[in-house]
Amino acid sequence: MIQFQCDYTEGAHPAIMQRLLDTNMEQTPGYGYDHYCKDAAKAIKEAIDCPNADIHFFVGGTQTNTTIIASLLRPFQGVISPDSGHISVHETGAIEHTGHKVITLPNTDGKITAEQIAKNIELYLAEDSPEHIVEPAMVYISFPTEIGTIYSRQELTDIHAVCQKYEIPLFIDGARLGYGLASPECDITLQDVARLCDVFYIGGTKGGSLFGEAVVFTNPKFFIPNFRHHIKQQGAMLAKGRLLGVQFLALFTDNLYLNIAGHANTEALRIRDAFRAKGCGFLVDSPTNQQFPIVTNAQMAALAKDFSFSKWQRVDSDRIVLRFCTSWATRTEDVDKLIAAIEKM
Amino acid sequence: MIQFQCDYTEGAHPAIMQRLLDTNMEQTPGYGYDHYCKDAAKAIKEAIDCPNADIHFFVGGTQTNTTIIASLLRPFQGVISPDSGHISVHETGAIEHTGHKVITLPNTDGKITAEQIAKNIELYLAEDSPEHIVEPAMVYISFPTEIGTIYSRQELTDIHAVCQKYEIPLFIDGARLGYGLASPECDITLQDVARLCDVFYIGGTKGGSLFGEAVVFTNPKFFIPNFRHHIKQQGAMLAKGRLLGVQFLALFTDNLYLNIAGHANTEALRIRDAFRAKGCGFLVDSPTNQQFPIVTNAQMAALAKDFSFSKWQRVDSDRIVLRFCTSWATRTEDVDKLIAAIEKM
Amino acid sequence: MIQFQCDYTEGAHPAIMQRLLDTNMEQTPGYGYDHYCKDAAKAIKEAIDCPNADIHFFVGGTQTNTTIIASLLRPFQGVISPDSGHISVHETGAIEHTGHKVITLPNTDGKITAEQIAKNIELYLAEDSPEHIVEPAMVYISFPTEIGTIYSRQELTDIHAVCQKYEIPLFIDGARLGYGLASPECDITLQDVARLCDVFYIGGTKGGSLFGEAVVFTNPKFFIPNFRHHIKQQGAMLAKGRLLGVQFLALFTDNLYLNIAGHANTEALRIRDAFRAKGCGFLVDSPTNQQFPIVTNAQMAALAKDFSFSKWQRVDSDRIVLRFCTSWATRTEDVDKLIAAIEKM
Amino acid sequence: MIQFQCDYTEGAHPAIMQRLLDTNMEQTPGYGYDHYCKDAAKAIKEAIDCPNADIHFFVGGTQTNTTIIASLLRPFQGVISPDSGHISVHETGAIEHTGHKVITLPNTDGKITAEQIAKNIELYLAEDSPEHIVEPAMVYISFPTEIGTIYSRQELTDIHAVCQKYEIPLFIDGARLGYGLASPECDITLQDVARLCDVFYIGGTKGGSLFGEAVVFTNPKFFIPNFRHHIKQQGAMLAKGRLLGVQFLALFTDNLYLNIAGHANTEALRIRDAFRAKGCGFLVDSPTNQQFPIVTNAQMAALAKDFSFSKWQRVDSDRIVLRFCTSWATRTEDVDKLIAAIEKM
Repeated sequence: MIQFQCDYTEGAHPAIMQRLLDTNMEQTPGYGYDHYCKDAAKAIKEAIDCPNADIHFFVGGTQTNTTIIASLLRPFQGVISPDSGHISVHETGAIEHTGHKVITLPNTDGKITAEQIAKNIELYLAEDSPEHIVEPAMVYISFPTEIGTIYSRQELTDIHAVCQKYEIPLFIDGARLGYGLASPECDITLQDVARLCDVFYIGGTKGGSLFGEAVVFTNPKFFIPNFRHHIKQQGAMLAKGRLLGVQFLALFTDNLYLNIAGHANTEALRIRDAFRAKGCGFLVDSPTNQQFPIVTNAQMAALAKDFSFSKWQRVDSDRIVLRFCTSWATRTEDVDKLIAAIEKM
Repeated sequence: MIQFQCDYTEGAHPAIMQRLLDTNMEQTPGYGYDHYCKDAAKAIKEAIDCPNADIHFFVGGTQTNTTIIASLLRPFQGVISPDSGHISVHETGAIEHTGHKVITLPNTDGKITAEQIAKNIELYLAEDSPEHIVEPAMVYISFPTEIGTIYSRQELTDIHAVCQKYEIPLFIDGARLGYGLASPECDITLQDVARLCDVFYIGGTKGGSLFGEAVVFTNPKFFIPNFRHHIKQQGAMLAKGRLLGVQFLALFTDNLYLNIAGHANTEALRIRDAFRAKGCGFLVDSPTNQQFPIVTNAQMAALAKDFSFSKWQRVDSDRIVLRFCTSWATRTEDVDKLIAAIEKM
Repeated sequence: MIQFQCDYTEGAHPAIMQRLLDTNMEQTPGYGYDHYCKDAAKAIKEAIDCPNADIHFFVGGTQTNTTIIASLLRPFQGVISPDSGHISVHETGAIEHTGHKVITLPNTDGKITAEQIAKNIELYLAEDSPEHIVEPAMVYISFPTEIGTIYSRQELTDIHAVCQKYEIPLFIDGARLGYGLASPECDITLQDVARLCDVFYIGGTKGGSLFGEAVVFTNPKFFIPNFRHHIKQQGAMLAKGRLLGVQFLALFTDNLYLNIAGHANTEALRIRDAFRAKGCGFLVDSPTNQQFPIVTNAQMAALAKDFSFSKWQRVDSDRIVLRFCTSWATRTEDVDKLIAAIEKM
Repeated sequence: MIQFQCDYTEGAHPAIMQRLLDTNMEQTPGYGYDHYCKDAAKAIKEAIDCPNADIHFFVGGTQTNTTIIASLLRPFQGVISPDSGHISVHETGAIEHTGHKVITLPNTDGKITAEQIAKNIELYLAEDSPEHIVEPAMVYISFPTEIGTIYSRQELTDIHAVCQKYEIPLFIDGARLGYGLASPECDITLQDVARLCDVFYIGGTKGGSLFGEAVVFTNPKFFIPNFRHHIKQQGAMLAKGRLLGVQFLALFTDNLYLNIAGHANTEALRIRDAFRAKGCGFLVDSPTNQQFPIVTNAQMAALAKDFSFSKWQRVDSDRIVLRFCTSWATRTEDVDKLIAAIEKM
């Protein structure tokens, strides 16, 4: 069984494993006070061209989203999100668990627009008695989105401008950031991401490491005092914090992070092309490492013999949307086999 | 600088690193649905002689404590803890953050007694209008305690009996469980721990692994329906969950977990003896891997040249309690050097 | 200025004020342990024909909704609500503040259907890994709805059946319950409400009293142990609890509660007819004490000279939906004046 | 049975009831936007000589304490309180329910000192890694305390100075404020209270009204933006808000608030003197409306025939501390009867 059901089926990129092995017996202080975390933060600041960024490392995405959002909001405030946003549908209400409403806007291909955001805020501001209403006080989007699509430079610029106008932070969930930036259809760089939002994170779990998300606050206006208190309270402070530093330092050496994402995208687009050639439609046109072809039940059964994938959603009784993920670890020969199976399905 | 300030200054025991390396490129499902987690749970059930235990793996201690406690309590209930308990003093109010009061009882050498617990509960039960009072609805203790002491078999038996009488769960924080069980003064076994409480966890972070805590529910009466929902909501579900399975499987192979703890204790007691021989007093008589000698400022300065340790608390303007920790990774030659320095301080 | 902007512009019905005055100097125990609360609960049980109901009194609607919902749900569970539900849009995220997601379904005329609810639950149950998803674990609807419409006996019966099928409680927000039951278009009775849900409340604040909502748990399966603890913790336990008992006892004497609601409806329907006669459309066809006519800006300006009302929502730049409320306190001569103004606007 | 068990056994002072009756049919906007609330706020500002105070009205004490504290603290911060403080022991963990730790200091006669507070804060500030610790970020005390004692001008001045030094707010719970200020042993005025803290509340529930607490923020540095959002979210915004305005306006007309408290104190001190004359000891020397005599079981039984009171705590198997409360409503002839019974017990 060759697995394409998600982008975290293996351990870490060999270069990262090697670094963990090399540093294993070194003694360092705990909780991220070690020199690897410092060096990794420095490497990231250079990569994003933002020397004053405030950088923190987390183990996983849900705790990252929750800690950032809960520490940026006051109790009566909520976060605007696409209704398809990960925080809205796939984190068991972790945001609400900290007391905050996720204010959902209808998505188009996983995305929301600057106009939607502005309209939602204007409706709130037009209230005579706003005290009965949750204040929309930050914006959450994913890049790429949960279904593999990406915002264009113009779209991001517009959303950022709306957030600046209303003086609320824009937070980009970058769980799969590398796959977005390395996409042939992407017209922005990592530096652009840093410039076009107030806080984002660089996903390691799905991008080459055993685990780890690097949170980057770029706008001093939204730096969070005592952010480490929030991290600890959320149960998100890793005792052996240097594990995160070591891994991100490896990811930001020799452009490893984007290189391996590029490989994943190449393989994903080969899978896309094979489904297209077979005449399949898609849930959405994704230029990144997640592909959502629509197949018949019989085709699904044929593929399921040798490959694992996710059943995304039913189209009708005979057709279903599947999800195939590639990653840094995807082997070209496995994709060859999948393509052969698609041709025969 | 040789570090004794905590028991998580290195990475993982080499046997564990090797297993992580060996399994790195294997494809498995995420979120703990892999065979390593299943095998590790099986190994633990055998080790504790409790075939029906319900086992879950976490990354770190604070998220473990918080998830267990918050999922066992109803909103108006609180958890009884020694006032020196980790959840009370060193987790940034993570329990309160989930809405629950930590009901503290005065500790003696880090411990509380069955009598104290019973009295607290009886006071609550004697209330005419208990609706104004937080209900004491579970008990939290650490084994060993935060200052290295351990409960005797009799003490644990008595506490457990009180909990059973009042039908509330007893939860043992085992962040350093191995060091307690491997202590020469310990009169209980791992199987006893499993029998004498309702839920406990086996600490990996401080006991040989890169990270990881194995939660063991032993009493079906307190199994938590949908516990995985709680884990996810708390941001504590590791995507590459097999990392936890692989590590705990290694720890429970060939008695590794207790063997390395025994080594740490041996080295700790050598440090203890050196301070004793020098005439130092101690905060408490600890038979485990943490030692709390009382030294003068001058002595502290002498040791600080080559060794790191924790400043625990001031005794007076000239004397201070220090903490020295050993671990699976502590090298005998480093302890030799420390002992030499103690003799000369 | 004659006020129609809401149904709580006056104090209490004179019969209630008289009872408060008559009992003012009597000494009673606090917190609802007095005989008035007992008698009021008894009167309500008789009125709903449910001798074993569990009844509690609250001061206001938001604290009532929050306490009921938060005490019925476990942390990872959410409440299904119409997207127009009061808890979703007009309580400043009070439900989320207690940690729970409000799972919104699109409303039609303020209502949702049994089919919508069943579909939402089925989607959840079809999840392979439901631990990532908030569990839909209760249903909240309002009777009448926030825009004055009412569920039919058949609609309520179907919703109740779905809740019973999935073993989750149905909670009816009855902030304006009397106005619904007293509507000429209503085909259910108070006894039916009690039979067709698991918990509901009888709104006093908008129905004749100074303040007060009577919560009625009718299904023992969903009685909440230690509910008074929840009430106190939520800050919702009134010290002089007898004030609630006295008022509800008066409301349930000589059918006062429904009689005064009937009066309000009569006046509201006269207002409706006047707008209709003038050719105005409506946001929705409401048979209760809230009316939502659509007027032009010029018409609104004409009415605003002598009457207050709520601006509900814009239709376009020249037309707007207004809200006119009547209540037990609405004077027929004031409605006469309003009708005259409508005719001339 | 004559009741002395608490100070909320009756309704409202007749002058207040009359005002409620007089204004009952007047139409006003809801939620505190009426002119009575404005006038009451104005009257209070004049009474406290603080024209820029920010004033809000609540129904009850627990919701008041919770809303103030939860809105002043960030998630990782806690509130310092005497261990006997109402928020610590008698509100079912309402503060923890909002996510915040109550940091308790040992009380002496219900009070804590400036020195204790400073020491607690200094310990926090001395932490090398404070992120593991809840930050002490505000101070809560009660005036008078839960056992009737009062802080002297010097004590309050010192506590206030400590709070100013560390730039954290001092919050005074004034549920029984009038009884404190009207005590013959009190050396401060209402204006002093306003000057010596950052926020306090004037208790109406126990001080003459049906219900109601007037929150007064005196220090603009700690005014809470969007405080009304917090109130609403907490379920603490009264629909017919004018009921609070009407009552506080009456209380602050002709010095009613302090006059009736003075009466209560006079009667309480007569009770105290009777117990003293009988040779009874006291839990504490209280100069306000709560008295805590120590009696034998036989004496208690004798008094219980005709009088109700609270059993406060056991001294030993034969002796018990009782609590007798007076209020604005206590009748001199009832106290005469109680004194006669004390003499005979």
